[in-house]
Amino acid sequence: MPQNDGPPSASAFDAATAVRRAEDGSLVAELDRGWDVGGGILNGGYLLSVAGRAAVLASPHEHPVALSASYLRAPAAGPATLTVVPGPAGRTLAHSLVTLSDEGGPALTVQATTATLTAAASEYGLPMPDVPPVEECFSVAEHRDLAPPGMQPGLSLRVDTRLDLATAGWAFGQPSGEPVLRAWMRLTDGREPDPLALLTFADALPPTSFSMGKLGWAPTVQLQVLVRALPAPGWCLVEARSSEISGGWVDEDYRIWDATGRLVAQSRQLARAPR
Amino acid sequence: MPQNDGPPSASAFDAATAVRRAEDGSLVAELDRGWDVGGGILNGGYLLSVAGRAAVLASPHEHPVALSASYLRAPAAGPATLTVVPGPAGRTLAHSLVTLSDEGGPALTVQATTATLTAAASEYGLPMPDVPPVEECFSVAEHRDLAPPGMQPGLSLRVDTRLDLATAGWAFGQPSGEPVLRAWMRLTDGREPDPLALLTFADALPPTSFSMGKLGWAPTVQLQVLVRALPAPGWCLVEARSSEISGGWVDEDYRIWDATGRLVAQSRQLARAPR
Repeated sequence: MPQNDGPPSASAFDAATAVRRAEDGSLVAELDRGWDVGGGILNGGYLLSVAGRAAVLASPHEHPVALSASYLRAPAAGPATLTVVPGPAGRTLAHSLVTLSDEGGPALTVQATTATLTAAASEYGLPMPDVPPVEECFSVAEHRDLAPPGMQPGLSLRVDTRLDLATAGWAFGQPSGEPVLRAWMRLTDGREPDPLALLTFADALPPTSFSMGKLGWAPTVQLQVLVRALPAPGWCLVEARSSEISGGWVDEDYRIWDATGRLVAQSRQLARAPR
Repeated sequence: MPQNDGPPSASAFDAATAVRRAEDGSLVAELDRGWDVGGGILNGGYLLSVAGRAAVLASPHEHPVALSASYLRAPAAGPATLTVVPGPAGRTLAHSLVTLSDEGGPALTVQATTATLTAAASEYGLPMPDVPPVEECFSVAEHRDLAPPGMQPGLSLRVDTRLDLATAGWAFGQPSGEPVLRAWMRLTDGREPDPLALLTFADALPPTSFSMGKLGWAPTVQLQVLVRALPAPGWCLVEARSSEISGGWVDEDYRIWDATGRLVAQSRQLARAPR
């Protein structure tokens, strides 16, 4: 774990996503090479958690409730700067535009809506799908050696991901042909989920194309995450599903439920489809 | 229809969404008061079609494939300006940031990804749900008088919307209690669908909250639309569904299929829930 100048924290996630104000007033972060999806490419959800922290720091509101990110290029691990251009802000919500840059220039631009989520009860909620218990699921971390050397994702050591075996056939050479993945998920460091962690979870499953037998990287082009409620402590259930694959493009549609079965986040991304 | 200086067109949609370059080089549009959702509030999808035209005008690519919009405030009908800040552009796709402003300032900021959609066959596609034929559905235009005086949406005269009766109970005082709406949709002017029209369709159904018996306006906060394929001529099928309603927030998740049954667009928005 690289040295991090953020506030001291026992959580690897908090350290790796820390954003602090430098002496010249700018917002800076230290992108942690450990949160990669293989080959040193940092995970898009991890980068969004860093941008979400910057949005919240510059807002009168506490939580990122809607973030839309365009992934311009893959930033390098190491120092990064964040600029936040504030938009209209009121009692209910605030808008801003966040840009994450490394030494090579802008890597990620994010339209951020922040608000203050409360403990309001759900008036309508999509129920959690039926999934086997965690101990009967497939640990992605324990099977990292299935990936080619140099392509083993650091992310799998930081986000504990337990795939429903019904959606893990691709790991055994038997892709299901249905672009659906489901997994229990929590931070490996034991930190409980919150809206910032949900931003990472919303892009932390393997690509749905794996279920179609295409095991390549699926680079995210644009990702929107909605955080709908404060998650309860414990494992989250994360489901990803594609609706259309063609012309080199694939969508991934995530729904995330907390340990009580409440829907707490949704995301949708457009990505380039692996060949 | 207000006078429009764009290219001559027999289509009311093309005229109302026209973007032209003024003598000083800026991009301008004339927002048409006819595309309102009631009470003079212009439809968010209509505004996105205007922004999408600006994105395409300033791009080497022909089609808007991913647009994420933050709705800052409701713009007035009449003159509007569009600024496009170009981002990275390559052979496959181009990024930009589009801002739509009226005399009161910025109303809409849009992260736009443009690309060139081809006639590539679908490798995987979510099938169209089973819906009765158009002639057995409920015409929103023919039942405009169900809305209170002054709140009748002009949009319903411009986007021909035929609701599946199974999701139209709210119009008869019998809301289903399931936040789902489904309708056949086409432009009333007879113009065939294309990616720009799909941007309007992706926010053109009544709010899903109507099915919960809440008949108020649900202002869009953030909307992402993905255009996945070039639609075939004819009616599109548009389905909207909410997954979570709480704390004054509601999501709306759209899927759009063309007349051949191919999934051609998806959208997701976070909106304020009507009381």
